[in-house]
Amino acid sequence: MNGEPAHERIAEFSCPIPISDHPNILLAHGGGGQLTHSLIEKMFAPAFRNSLLESRHDGAVLSFNGIRLAFTTDSHVVHPLFFPGGDIGTLAVNGTVNDLAMCGARPVYLSAGFIIEEGMPMETLWRVVQSMRCAAARDGVQLVTGDTKVVEKGKGDGLFINTSGIGILEHNLSIAPASVRDGDVILLSGDIGRHGIAIMAVREGLSFESAIQSDCASVAGPVMELLKTGIEIHCLRDLTRGGLATALVEITEVARLQADLEETAIPVREEVRGACELLGLDPLYVANEGRFVALVPSKDALQALTLMKSHSGDACVIGRVIAPQSRSFESGVVTIRSPIGASRIVDRLSGEQLPRIC
Amino acid sequence: MNGEPAHERIAEFSCPIPISDHPNILLAHGGGGQLTHSLIEKMFAPAFRNSLLESRHDGAVLSFNGIRLAFTTDSHVVHPLFFPGGDIGTLAVNGTVNDLAMCGARPVYLSAGFIIEEGMPMETLWRVVQSMRCAAARDGVQLVTGDTKVVEKGKGDGLFINTSGIGILEHNLSIAPASVRDGDVILLSGDIGRHGIAIMAVREGLSFESAIQSDCASVAGPVMELLKTGIEIHCLRDLTRGGLATALVEITEVARLQADLEETAIPVREEVRGACELLGLDPLYVANEGRFVALVPSKDALQALTLMKSHSGDACVIGRVIAPQSRSFESGVVTIRSPIGASRIVDRLSGEQLPRIC
Repeated sequence: MNGEPAHERIAEFSCPIPISDHPNILLAHGGGGQLTHSLIEKMFAPAFRNSLLESRHDGAVLSFNGIRLAFTTDSHVVHPLFFPGGDIGTLAVNGTVNDLAMCGARPVYLSAGFIIEEGMPMETLWRVVQSMRCAAARDGVQLVTGDTKVVEKGKGDGLFINTSGIGILEHNLSIAPASVRDGDVILLSGDIGRHGIAIMAVREGLSFESAIQSDCASVAGPVMELLKTGIEIHCLRDLTRGGLATALVEITEVARLQADLEETAIPVREEVRGACELLGLDPLYVANEGRFVALVPSKDALQALTLMKSHSGDACVIGRVIAPQSRSFESGVVTIRSPIGASRIVDRLSGEQLPRIC
Repeated sequence: MNGEPAHERIAEFSCPIPISDHPNILLAHGGGGQLTHSLIEKMFAPAFRNSLLESRHDGAVLSFNGIRLAFTTDSHVVHPLFFPGGDIGTLAVNGTVNDLAMCGARPVYLSAGFIIEEGMPMETLWRVVQSMRCAAARDGVQLVTGDTKVVEKGKGDGLFINTSGIGILEHNLSIAPASVRDGDVILLSGDIGRHGIAIMAVREGLSFESAIQSDCASVAGPVMELLKTGIEIHCLRDLTRGGLATALVEITEVARLQADLEETAIPVREEVRGACELLGLDPLYVANEGRFVALVPSKDALQALTLMKSHSGDACVIGRVIAPQSRSFESGVVTIRSPIGASRIVDRLSGEQLPRIC
């Protein structure tokens, strides 16, 4: 056995997630919160260990003879396929475009892998393909390669779409959680919680006074403009599964810093807040599909805010990065100050709030 | 309406596949044959039209300041997850590695997108991840980015895996169907039909005297060696869904040439031939996962054959590319000469032979 390379021997090791903990995959393993984190940290990261995976970012930044490219992938399983403000096609294109933008890359090329359930109406596929076409054209990205699989009726759910993407980095910044510094200002690109509530409303047959539309959109435009100004961007992160809270927990964990947020500064539309109260949800954890945070040094914060506000009037400063205020915070922490001044610790999403949100 | 860009208006067009033809997606739309071809040509290609998609190859070749990269994607839905000779993990890595190799690229980076059905045993996921790790290590590729989604029980089927990949082209050849020329020699890298028969045997509970193992393997090794010799490779294609026949039909259609094959030259193992007879299958259409054809000018054929034989004793010349022998062949055709000298035309797979083979 000694002659075998290490990777041939690993199959003998036992599963790193003890059967006594989780013998089977739960919906929450795909929810973007605690269990997804545990699956990545305990199973995927050790198995595929390499320096690019270590960044724990929305994509990998690859170097080819001085040319830096971002590479990212996302499978989309949103249910229902069509929802107020978008559909699985717009989501599949925007989701991957946004992940490239979060690496500071200009999105250029996409792939699409369709997994279709037998019996899906051809017209439905056509509508989704048209949405993808429109979303790709809006961002000037080309869909250059693809794949189609069909599974038997009852072995899928209409349509799943994987999109992977390649973007070009046209600057020398290292935009990643590890670049975040004590004193950075945390900017949010707009109001939060709309995508999750829009999906939940359709799914649960809820109706509100005014229909809540998903915020599903590309954020490549504002990000490319931020980069053009030469602002020293430290980190970008789009707020998808797990919401604002989980995104900032993930960033501070890698950066080993503390993020202090002002709850009153975080924009949540009245109807979203009402729906959250009705459904027992915290808007901090609700998924978005067109929102991101930017972490920049305080010298650049005003310029970044002005530019972000030109895209969305709701863009704002929501807090600041500081050195850990307690020894127990040294692996990273997010705190939030309530309107009455009380401060609480925000953890990543635990359990599954809303499966198949994207 | 005139002010809207063209891509915003297309949604008004009607579905390009008439409802009277196929109102719903059939399993055969994912089979790699006629209906997959029709879906690509009528729906995907017109919607996403660009010069890179036009090559109709296993991946797109992208240029970045003189650096040429291949980019490809495949979703894997094979059933069962484990089969003689491999599993969905080895298949997911090798499948994408092979598609990169078919572009003449050295595979370097992979992404992985998991769609898991709620309730799948954690241990099963772990075994698949270990297979992926081993397969990636064998080819020296790094898995650098990923995504995990979980769907409710009954809305998936255990595990689907998308892998996308990036490879580097380290030569100046244009390896694609359009580069094929009159006079090219067609080489096959080994015996055909094993993957499809291995899967079918497990699924149907058939047992043969000796178990038939899938040919699932990376072909990057022999392809990289072929490239290193400086042989003028015109086209490479791996023989997956639709088998040898469909691969050559697709190539000759783009090249607008004719491929003449010798049936007796095509290696099929005795037990595979027997199983095909029993099941009413033609080995020419049965899927492989570790076989490819190389089309090279006759001056290079012997050198290519010698090298390919050093990897598999079954590698052989199976035919030749000629100018279309009839006006009706001008859009490309494949003919095959039987042992008794009769010649017949081979079309791409029609209908669905065996769903979820990869």
